[in-house]
Amino acid sequence: MAKNKNFSASPAKGSVFLYGRHPVFAAIANPSRQILKICAAAENAPELKKHLTANQKDNVPLQIVDRKDIDKMLPREAVHQGYAAQCKELEGYSIEDICALADQRPDCHILVLDQVTDPQNIGAIIRSCVAFDTLALVIQDKNSPQETGAMAKASAGMIELLPICRVTNLSRALNRLKEAGFWILGMDGYAQTTIGQINKAGKTAIVMGSEGKGMRRLVEESCDASVKLPISPKVESLNVSTAAAIALYEINRR
Amino acid sequence: MAKNKNFSASPAKGSVFLYGRHPVFAAIANPSRQILKICAAAENAPELKKHLTANQKDNVPLQIVDRKDIDKMLPREAVHQGYAAQCKELEGYSIEDICALADQRPDCHILVLDQVTDPQNIGAIIRSCVAFDTLALVIQDKNSPQETGAMAKASAGMIELLPICRVTNLSRALNRLKEAGFWILGMDGYAQTTIGQINKAGKTAIVMGSEGKGMRRLVEESCDASVKLPISPKVESLNVSTAAAIALYEINRR
Repeated sequence: MAKNKNFSASPAKGSVFLYGRHPVFAAIANPSRQILKICAAAENAPELKKHLTANQKDNVPLQIVDRKDIDKMLPREAVHQGYAAQCKELEGYSIEDICALADQRPDCHILVLDQVTDPQNIGAIIRSCVAFDTLALVIQDKNSPQETGAMAKASAGMIELLPICRVTNLSRALNRLKEAGFWILGMDGYAQTTIGQINKAGKTAIVMGSEGKGMRRLVEESCDASVKLPISPKVESLNVSTAAAIALYEINRR
Repeated sequence: MAKNKNFSASPAKGSVFLYGRHPVFAAIANPSRQILKICAAAENAPELKKHLTANQKDNVPLQIVDRKDIDKMLPREAVHQGYAAQCKELEGYSIEDICALADQRPDCHILVLDQVTDPQNIGAIIRSCVAFDTLALVIQDKNSPQETGAMAKASAGMIELLPICRVTNLSRALNRLKEAGFWILGMDGYAQTTIGQINKAGKTAIVMGSEGKGMRRLVEESCDASVKLPISPKVESLNVSTAAAIALYEINRR
């Protein structure tokens, strides 16, 4: 990402700048999201005020600024449409929280990402998770980025709606999910079976590695089975967010 | 896109800068791609030379340069990995060419994009087309970008493998495809039927509009039927390249 001396992705520990219409409106609509301040272009203010009132957030400071001032607050390539909000990061979920949520949904699925690091990809994946009724997203903590404005933007604000759980030890998390009745399905381009061919009943966790590298060996060994997407031998792989979307679409067909 | 006085997306009419390992290697491997010059970091040269020789392209000038010099040739955010190639643009296909190709493939499908303008999205869509054996991509010419380095990069070089047809009048092109036996299927979030529910036998053209706006009315009226993806009411829409990938996956299942 381009450096900009006026920009700090984490303006204070545990805080994040969201930008763009969808992310800011979704943050306002999320009762769990604490907003510290909103900066907006004058023409965006009336609708924002209405939305704040409708969500009992009239107390959030709303500052009218020039678009250029918002430019200075954000990374260079950020398309903010005249909206920026300084927020507290969302509280994460624990693997126990996810198991408790799953208790009430016998046919649910979750997505697990191993070493996926690009915030744009993670954001796009979050959007697909919400589109296909994914119960939660589990991310390996060490190598994945924290919540960022770019991630929220790529999710079109859907980051407000998806339980996200960060874990330090993914193999251990997968074992806990197994105990909770999840069937662990690893996505692997070299698998024999396609995802369309498997029995999708019950609780399923889909595990995906990073583009190119795939899952780490220990993570792969924690899977109950591996499946692939049926792609042409002409392409090495799909983009990880594209592959995730298709896998979630397929698992949600049942 | 950020401005850079050293950069010109079309260094000369009909010419384009490709960058990144996959796009440059794929361009070399494509017999139809005329390469004017390659600039590469020293450590990339030996493998490039081998690849040029293997593809009878020894005559292509290969210039060893600093990575910083490549930075200057390209848009600011271009991730070039020490590879850049100045190439002639690929020759486009006409709608007649596409119909002729389809003659030999009774169960083929093509993808048609109306008003999709983001080169990253078009590149990602090209990659998915090749992954799911799409016969060709038809793009409305006026509002869609010409071949660019960013598009080739997002396609992971797959732009070299997909017949692409640019047309000025999309409704007329759809009518010609109908005459050639194509069933025209419009993607529309408000459709009653999901794409998984339809009969997929025969030649199919999937038509997608831009994110948010959808297809233009005249284009929509040229469709034989409309279908949607089964997404949660919580999300307004999917990213256009995600939606395209799922539609192509689904149409290629048959």
